[in-house]
Amino acid sequence: MSDIPETVTDPSRQDALEDGQLRGSFVESVEVALDEGDEARVQELVEPLHNADIADLIEQVPPNDRAALAAALGDKLDPEIIAEMDDQVREDLIDILPPERVAQVLGELDTDDAVAIVEDLDESDQRAVLLELDPDDRAAIEEALGYPEESAGRLMQRELIAVPDHWSVGQVIDYLRGGSDEELAEDFYEIFVTDMRHHPIGTIMLSRMLRAPRDRSVRHIMEKEQTLIPVYMDQEEVALRFQKYNLISAAVVDDDERLVGVITVDDIVDIVQQEADEDFRKLTGAEEGGLNERTRDIVRQRLRWLVINLGTAVLASLVIGVFASTIETIVALAILMPIVASLGGNAATQTMAVTVRALATDELTEANTRRTIIKEIRVAVINGVAIAVLIGLGTWAFFQDPKLGAVIALAMVGNIMVAGLAGVLVPMTLDRMEIDPAISSSVFVTMTTDVMGFFLFLGLASVVLL
Amino acid sequence: MSDIPETVTDPSRQDALEDGQLRGSFVESVEVALDEGDEARVQELVEPLHNADIADLIEQVPPNDRAALAAALGDKLDPEIIAEMDDQVREDLIDILPPERVAQVLGELDTDDAVAIVEDLDESDQRAVLLELDPDDRAAIEEALGYPEESAGRLMQRELIAVPDHWSVGQVIDYLRGGSDEELAEDFYEIFVTDMRHHPIGTIMLSRMLRAPRDRSVRHIMEKEQTLIPVYMDQEEVALRFQKYNLISAAVVDDDERLVGVITVDDIVDIVQQEADEDFRKLTGAEEGGLNERTRDIVRQRLRWLVINLGTAVLASLVIGVFASTIETIVALAILMPIVASLGGNAATQTMAVTVRALATDELTEANTRRTIIKEIRVAVINGVAIAVLIGLGTWAFFQDPKLGAVIALAMVGNIMVAGLAGVLVPMTLDRMEIDPAISSSVFVTMTTDVMGFFLFLGLASVVLL
Repeated sequence: MSDIPETVTDPSRQDALEDGQLRGSFVESVEVALDEGDEARVQELVEPLHNADIADLIEQVPPNDRAALAAALGDKLDPEIIAEMDDQVREDLIDILPPERVAQVLGELDTDDAVAIVEDLDESDQRAVLLELDPDDRAAIEEALGYPEESAGRLMQRELIAVPDHWSVGQVIDYLRGGSDEELAEDFYEIFVTDMRHHPIGTIMLSRMLRAPRDRSVRHIMEKEQTLIPVYMDQEEVALRFQKYNLISAAVVDDDERLVGVITVDDIVDIVQQEADEDFRKLTGAEEGGLNERTRDIVRQRLRWLVINLGTAVLASLVIGVFASTIETIVALAILMPIVASLGGNAATQTMAVTVRALATDELTEANTRRTIIKEIRVAVINGVAIAVLIGLGTWAFFQDPKLGAVIALAMVGNIMVAGLAGVLVPMTLDRMEIDPAISSSVFVTMTTDVMGFFLFLGLASVVLL
Repeated sequence: MSDIPETVTDPSRQDALEDGQLRGSFVESVEVALDEGDEARVQELVEPLHNADIADLIEQVPPNDRAALAAALGDKLDPEIIAEMDDQVREDLIDILPPERVAQVLGELDTDDAVAIVEDLDESDQRAVLLELDPDDRAAIEEALGYPEESAGRLMQRELIAVPDHWSVGQVIDYLRGGSDEELAEDFYEIFVTDMRHHPIGTIMLSRMLRAPRDRSVRHIMEKEQTLIPVYMDQEEVALRFQKYNLISAAVVDDDERLVGVITVDDIVDIVQQEADEDFRKLTGAEEGGLNERTRDIVRQRLRWLVINLGTAVLASLVIGVFASTIETIVALAILMPIVASLGGNAATQTMAVTVRALATDELTEANTRRTIIKEIRVAVINGVAIAVLIGLGTWAFFQDPKLGAVIALAMVGNIMVAGLAGVLVPMTLDRMEIDPAISSSVFVTMTTDVMGFFLFLGLASVVLL
């Protein structure tokens, strides 16, 4: 088997990686080499790594070591590495690179990747870098920056293959073979067929192209049905279209339906991840970015949310305050009341999580709204009764007071029903008002279950037990 | 412009869809037609829809109408529609279709889609359907079912293009043109190059293939660096590799490193969505499936979680019970104590959400664990002090009692620090113990902040105020 050109899996890469992650020991040896200023050793260690792994490495060394690592990498700091990196780490890194170097990196990337980097720079850095770019690249990036953030216009790449509808398969192949690498998109999956006004009228999967006879017209082998993405469409919406119609790539069109770019599915994978993570974090009031966010930004984002939570908690306390004299008489109420509020909050969060995601993924629509609400009420009644029986009997047994057991059981059923309704209605209402349900549902929902929990339990207790 | 073959956007589809979703009014008119038993009208309405939209339609009509809709669709119930459908709805639908029809549907799908359907059937249905399949399809599906659920073996499709490394580009193209549709994968993005033992040794993007001269050897244009997916790898891990290395498709290899299948990125988009949603739901204790889950299953799944929550809430109550006499003396404590617990819970959930997702997406690694913990402590101290000052001053002002203000402020700082630590350490520890942090972190974390919140506040109050 001497004619196998090279082994696919490089053994030296095995030392660095385990289960697809960089080993802790490997990262440490890079840190040691950096501390010793041994650039040759750093380069030797990094040599077998894939660009995506180098990006991971830069993220994982301590922030203070990143500049030294970038310097040690020198020319090996490939544009792709920078494109792969976490936004936050990249921003820090770009701050220490000279604008000419950044411009050089951008020039080598596809427009969509270059735009993703430039859009995060602050204005003065942006201007400095754009000035260093060659005029064509600059024009392309500036045009993309003219579209709203997170729109298809930012996401698309301009490099694409479009052919007129009167061509034959042979003509297309000759065109592809003749074109220089500079002119043609490097890797592509579909060819777009356009009419004279540059409107896309069909697509051809490359696999079909390869298998068609040379004299066949592109009109005969193209797929006419295609999903066109308007250039102003929000990226979340774009991702939903890709998922729904299982797209590999899609044409982006301007207001006049002219072909202006293409979006490919590899970018969509990142968006799906990112949007799901965002919803996840927003719902809990955590910061927007990931692990590499700056402490200052994390504090600011989380604190805002905690202050709001403080407000709603105080509101709930005011409700308790109304019943202060009742609590003074029956101290068991103070012991039991957090249980009612806690279970209400939990039940509401369950419903809310399902509703928020169903809204985000377009599962919850006009047609199934009523059915969903009815189902949630049914679930709330069953679960509410089940939990109420448990806590009612437990309270009766522990405090030897059947009336107290009945009061907590009734309050529990009531609060879990309130929770079910709030969990589904609050996100739906916010969504109709075009407010992101992920970010604001929690406040309203937990406020509702806290306030109602204390009110139902202490109110019932005042009436029944005093 | 008379030579434009057809308009791409069909106007009759515009009546049915709005912003990529089926209009409520459209779904209603289908329901009306179904109620009137007017199958012709149903077919007319459904006619312009894409298969993915028909799948949505079946999901959105009330469950009782689904059988009638499937019957009205008749032969137009395309295999792709069934593949696109929500798991739960599909299961119900397949229950009412005869096994021969299901087998026919499966025969027309790629192995991966067919397996996705068969694996959800209960055992007797599975056997009935497999018996009706033609032997080749049956063998392929049975082999796939032999791999663990959610493994690469279930996910991959067997239809792929592999060529020997001594071929030329021309030979490959002739092979592709000559092969019948039956034998070749219909749409593909990459060609795999294998050696004599069927080990994959390189890949060729179709766009490169198209642009290479016919007499060039495949060895010269293939990319040697490739990510091989072991057939037993978990799908979440597979998705992370695709994201990390921006893959469009990847070769799946068996234990002997032989090429056995291919996974394409369109399936990965769904997995990324699904895994993020699962984490999201698990963290809140909601059910695993989406909106179409059966009420019985929702109740069972959520109730289990609520019962666990009841247990932790009772535990917190026991802590309060210890300080019952203190509360009897100072009723303000009962009013204020939920605030301490609530903010602790909120702060912990913020940290936990970030940690759980960082673990799921491989961002949190050996190398940055210590740094992350230190950062969380720092954030917790700052936020804890900020909230403590607010609530401390507020309490002092409201109750005219500086000591009470100091007690709640101290308890708050303590509990928010506990929250930060628990939010990061609990998921990390569970992950090390190979327990899914998404599903079990919440219980431990909220229990910790509730118990510690009440203990710190009431304990300090007993010492300082009595």
